[in-house]
Amino acid sequence: MSSLRGMQQPELSKKLFKLIKTENHCIGAYESAGRERASIATQLSEWGESTNDDAISDISDKLGVLMAEIAEQEDLYAQNLEDYRGVLKQIRNTESSVQPSRDHKAKVSDEIQKLKYKEPSSTKIVQLEQELVRAEAQSLVAEAQLTNITRQKFKEAYDIHFAALIERGEKQALLAKHARRVLNLLDDTPIVPGDQHPTYEGTETGRHSLNDAEDELRAWNSTAEPITSNAGTMASGAIPAHPGQVADPTFVKEAAQQKEIEEEAARRVHGDEEQSIATESTTTENPPYPVGQGVTLQDAGEAH
Amino acid sequence: MSSLRGMQQPELSKKLFKLIKTENHCIGAYESAGRERASIATQLSEWGESTNDDAISDISDKLGVLMAEIAEQEDLYAQNLEDYRGVLKQIRNTESSVQPSRDHKAKVSDEIQKLKYKEPSSTKIVQLEQELVRAEAQSLVAEAQLTNITRQKFKEAYDIHFAALIERGEKQALLAKHARRVLNLLDDTPIVPGDQHPTYEGTETGRHSLNDAEDELRAWNSTAEPITSNAGTMASGAIPAHPGQVADPTFVKEAAQQKEIEEEAARRVHGDEEQSIATESTTTENPPYPVGQGVTLQDAGEAH
Repeated sequence: MSSLRGMQQPELSKKLFKLIKTENHCIGAYESAGRERASIATQLSEWGESTNDDAISDISDKLGVLMAEIAEQEDLYAQNLEDYRGVLKQIRNTESSVQPSRDHKAKVSDEIQKLKYKEPSSTKIVQLEQELVRAEAQSLVAEAQLTNITRQKFKEAYDIHFAALIERGEKQALLAKHARRVLNLLDDTPIVPGDQHPTYEGTETGRHSLNDAEDELRAWNSTAEPITSNAGTMASGAIPAHPGQVADPTFVKEAAQQKEIEEEAARRVHGDEEQSIATESTTTENPPYPVGQGVTLQDAGEAH
Repeated sequence: MSSLRGMQQPELSKKLFKLIKTENHCIGAYESAGRERASIATQLSEWGESTNDDAISDISDKLGVLMAEIAEQEDLYAQNLEDYRGVLKQIRNTESSVQPSRDHKAKVSDEIQKLKYKEPSSTKIVQLEQELVRAEAQSLVAEAQLTNITRQKFKEAYDIHFAALIERGEKQALLAKHARRVLNLLDDTPIVPGDQHPTYEGTETGRHSLNDAEDELRAWNSTAEPITSNAGTMASGAIPAHPGQVADPTFVKEAAQQKEIEEEAARRVHGDEEQSIATESTTTENPPYPVGQGVTLQDAGEAH
């Protein structure tokens, strides 16, 4: 590890944080390989010229051209991996933002248990139980957002990843096949000292190979199976956009019922806060829990 | 440049020396990419498990398996590039070994010109002209060896190079296509808070995809056009092995005639050295000029 930052990540996003970091090294390696390959392409052409052998000179130059295109594809692959890495970050950010919600729920629940043991008659218990309902409602939304974002972005990310690999593989194989055709223009029949190789006549044939390679590269189409997605129904709050579902605060009420909170007592002591739950659950454009907006543990701490 | 060694290379092999060095960096980048990819494969599987989402867990594990195989292919590619690099070194070594032969010929020729200007009547001129004949005979062989080795090994090297690229490309594309099939087993339909995704039932289908990928990988055959070679007739001395050519010292005699050296004078002054030319030119197993045996400029200097 070249940095300790991974240690400061919320537990929930640590694994993906590390994966994204490793992917960054991997992309760097491909960028480097692409650069070196492009440099070798030029060096090969220059070496060929310096041999003063017409055949080697022409063929090495043409192989250099194809190799430069192969290097280009390597670089394009690295760029696509960068895109895929960006999508993974969206999952990681959601994971990070869900952590405080889980922590908050656990903390309130703990406090209630402690208080019930120490001061069973404290009026603060009612207040905390009310807070727990809100925390659970928030958590339910956050967990739904997490699973929705994770599944959608996971598919999106690896769609990009594997499509990029197929593109690199097929295009480079195509180029390499033409390179082999060019290479076969070289006559390696050995000569006796003082003799010359027959005049090289492959220049035109080689040029055709280059043109064919260019045409085929332009005409290339992915044969990859399309990745299906049903995530299109998801609203910006990362929960389904069907009117009957998002605008309906039923799930919040159900969460409340499950915990058998005494609605009466709550309304009597903190009527204003009860009002605020209802407000939150009906604002479909602003879900109770902000997702992917850079919420950190610190922010969550301040909210307590 | 991380080293000045390239500067110490004979002029003739400098370009290829540098190319081989760059190729080493390129191979290092692929090895690194392969290692990182293998690491990401494990991390992906572990992350998936930690999500406690059966579908994500199963699919990420299977994608991890395919990705590990993709990493394996990356490493195999790097190994093949190492082989190709080894073949390029054979050309470079021949280039290095031919340099002193060129230098020696040029030096003797220079000395003759200088002496003819300063001391036209010196008997040393005859001696040097005799040496020049030998130098030219040696050079003719060396240049034939160079072009023969260069063409043969060039074909061999890039045969390996492009075959390796095709293998990596086709095998990785094959694996990536199965990965996409596995990825499509993930249902990314968003759920409302409090809901669960339907039970994941892709485990078996995914396993079939892994098995298919394994089978196809094992059955893979290169569709690459074979590289032809006529270098099979070449003897170990890097000149043709046809009895009527190699064993025939005609080329040495022709070289002598071209320069119109007075054979009489030579035989009178240095009969013993004339004998040594004849011996050299008929030892087919040991060509006049040692090839690929680490001859350096220094060695050549000592021979003067």
